[in-house]
Order: sequence, then C-alpha cells, then structure tokens
Amino acid sequence: MFLPHPVADQINLATVLAVLGDPTRLGIVAYLARREGVPTNCSQFLDLGSKTNLSYHLAKLREAGVTHAQVLGTSRLITLRRDDLDARFPGLLDSVIAGARDFPLPFKGMDARES
Amino acid sequence: MFLPHPVADQINLATVLAVLGDPTRLGIVAYLARREGVPTNCSQFLDLGSKTNLSYHLAKLREAGVTHAQVLGTSRLITLRRDDLDARFPGLLDSVIAGARDFPLPFKGMDARES
Repeated sequence: MFLPHPVADQINLATVLAVLGDPTRLGIVAYLARREGVPTNCSQFLDLGSKTNLSYHLAKLREAGVTHAQVLGTSRLITLRRDDLDARFPGLLDSVIAGARDFPLPFKGMDARES
Repeated sequence: MFLPHPVADQINLATVLAVLGDPTRLGIVAYLARREGVPTNCSQFLDLGSKTNLSYHLAKLREAGVTHAQVLGTSRLITLRRDDLDARFPGLLDSVIAGARDFPLPFKGMDARES
C-alpha cells in the first residue's frame, strides 16, 4: 500500500506554511528533525492522546510534502522530506526547525530537550 | 489612533507560519519585500477587489507581527517587521520571500516582476 505524496515540483509554499502553522505539527517536525535520517514509527507519537488527531496531523504534513510516510504493516515510518524542501525553498526548513527547537512538544513523556 | 501590534517577544512561530500560509498574504509580503524600506500605502493594494477582504488580510499580517501599520488619516502605511522577524526567527522571512518571489500577485494591475 502506498500513500499519496506530492512530487517535489508540486510542493506549494502557501500549503507548506499553512500546514506548519500549527503547534502540534511544529512539535512533530521538531521531533523528526532531532532524529533526522532515522525513520520514526508513527506509534512514537501516540502519546499525543488521540490516534485520530495524530493521523490527521500526519496526513496534513504528508499531503503538503513536508514528510514522507512509508507503510509497514499497520505502522508508518515517517521522515522529513529534507532534500525536496531544501531544493524548493532553500533555508525554510532550517529556519522553522530552529524556531521550533524550544517549542513545547505536545506529547506526554517526550522531553523537548532530548538531543 | 494606534492599531495593536504584538511586541517582538510575543511573535509566535506557529501564528506567523499560519498567517503566511495564504496565497493573498504571501503576495502582499512579496510586494512589500520588493519595496522594503518604503512604507506602502494600503490603498496600493485596493486592486485586490474587495476592501473588506484586503483589510482582513492586512489585519492578520499585523496581528501576527509580520507587518507594522501606521495610521495616517484614513490610510495605513504598511511595512514589513524585518528586524523583529529576523531577530525572532533568523532566515525565515528571507526564505519565505525567496519562495514567494515568483508568486503570482493577486492584484490586478500589478506586475509580479516589478522591481
């Protein structure tokens, strides 16, 4: 099973910014950025509280082209689309990640200062 | 008459991104960026079509801390809050402006390539 992702050329600046303009999704991106290169199982976000709510936010990020999700059984492995975003909007992801660095993670049991 | 503006420390990343995540507002920011240092009279945006719609978008930008508006009679002089945004989120405004450079301006009679 494959989930739909926009191709790099279709990643739209207004859509990316709108999707990033949410504290929960900024928390997810900041968390993924701290583990960059290591696909993160979506179950790691389940402390968010509601699986439905989490699925909604992860779908928003994927559909905007911010993240890539690989289906693995009942799980999804999530990564940032660093190369595509850097190519489309140089510097944007880094400035957002830097700004979200001290963003309180919306997940119970996660340490915002974990490195 | 003074319009409310957030102080620099209160400018919130999620709010800024959400407000920038709109094609009309990106067009306004791209236009202001091309005239940086020169306050832009809000009437220059009136080709947008609806004064109400324009007022809404300009208020959103001001309330998020992206722009400063100075009341001058019945007009407002609009500028980007470049220094505050650069201090709070280094590189963010430049990457957004670069990404919005070729953004089609939503205003009739404005040339997107005007320099």
